[in-house]
Amino acid sequence: MRISQGVEWALHCCVTLACTGNSEPISTARFAKRFKLPPAYLNKSLQALVHAGILMSNAGPKGGFRLAKSPASITLWDVVSAIEGSEHSFRCTEIRKNAGAGPQECLKPCGIAQAMYDAEEAWRRSLAHITLEKIMESSPSVVKERAMRWFELTRS
Amino acid sequence: MRISQGVEWALHCCVTLACTGNSEPISTARFAKRFKLPPAYLNKSLQALVHAGILMSNAGPKGGFRLAKSPASITLWDVVSAIEGSEHSFRCTEIRKNAGAGPQECLKPCGIAQAMYDAEEAWRRSLAHITLEKIMESSPSVVKERAMRWFELTRS
Repeated sequence: MRISQGVEWALHCCVTLACTGNSEPISTARFAKRFKLPPAYLNKSLQALVHAGILMSNAGPKGGFRLAKSPASITLWDVVSAIEGSEHSFRCTEIRKNAGAGPQECLKPCGIAQAMYDAEEAWRRSLAHITLEKIMESSPSVVKERAMRWFELTRS
Repeated sequence: MRISQGVEWALHCCVTLACTGNSEPISTARFAKRFKLPPAYLNKSLQALVHAGILMSNAGPKGGFRLAKSPASITLWDVVSAIEGSEHSFRCTEIRKNAGAGPQECLKPCGIAQAMYDAEEAWRRSLAHITLEKIMESSPSVVKERAMRWFELTRS
């Protein structure tokens, strides 16, 4: 089981936007250069964030992405679910039916499926508890300073 | 992100062993027939549980698998990690280095990676908290009765 690389990329781009004050759009090309990432794949991840209402995008030569909400209103779960989807990682195929469990019994998840769902819920809750703002606040000041320096240096 | 089907299969086989008292080995073929599963793939999952010390296997015509420990000593995390491995689902590729973070700063995970690891830890803790015994105890009595009936009917 592996979380796709796009999650790491998307989170770092969002934190970069938060650290630089979200004052003007940053393009995929600029992000890709900053983190040495493949622009086309990165763009796919950023578009998924637009689709989820986390980023807004502007077209044109000065276009790019900005956070659509405040860093205090965007959680890691928002970003992770925008990229990974919000389906359960554990997909129950109800093999108990093959062993004779009837439709009435199967109206409720079995103990195994329920425990697996509960664990995922703990994971989601943990991610939903952390906002981009918290990430910024808990990072050493050098992280924000470096982002600001990069932002100023690479402005067109 | 998806948990492999082998986890569902392995968990149901373990709970079947627990429900039937773990009194004699049950073969892959017998499990495969019970749950209508592909025997070769199922066997791979069960062998992973042997490797992890959750099951023991006996060769020969009366051979098969038994729990290597009591159902109260086997957690869902034991089974899940035996099949999925215990690596992080979030694999940090340290893209902050590409943005200029130095080796000293990178001795510690960044805020993003730490939050992702913390969420996984919440998931693991939740799974490590549930034993096969708990699953049995929380299941309707019909689950255990059906397993016992199947066990008696399919004894060779």
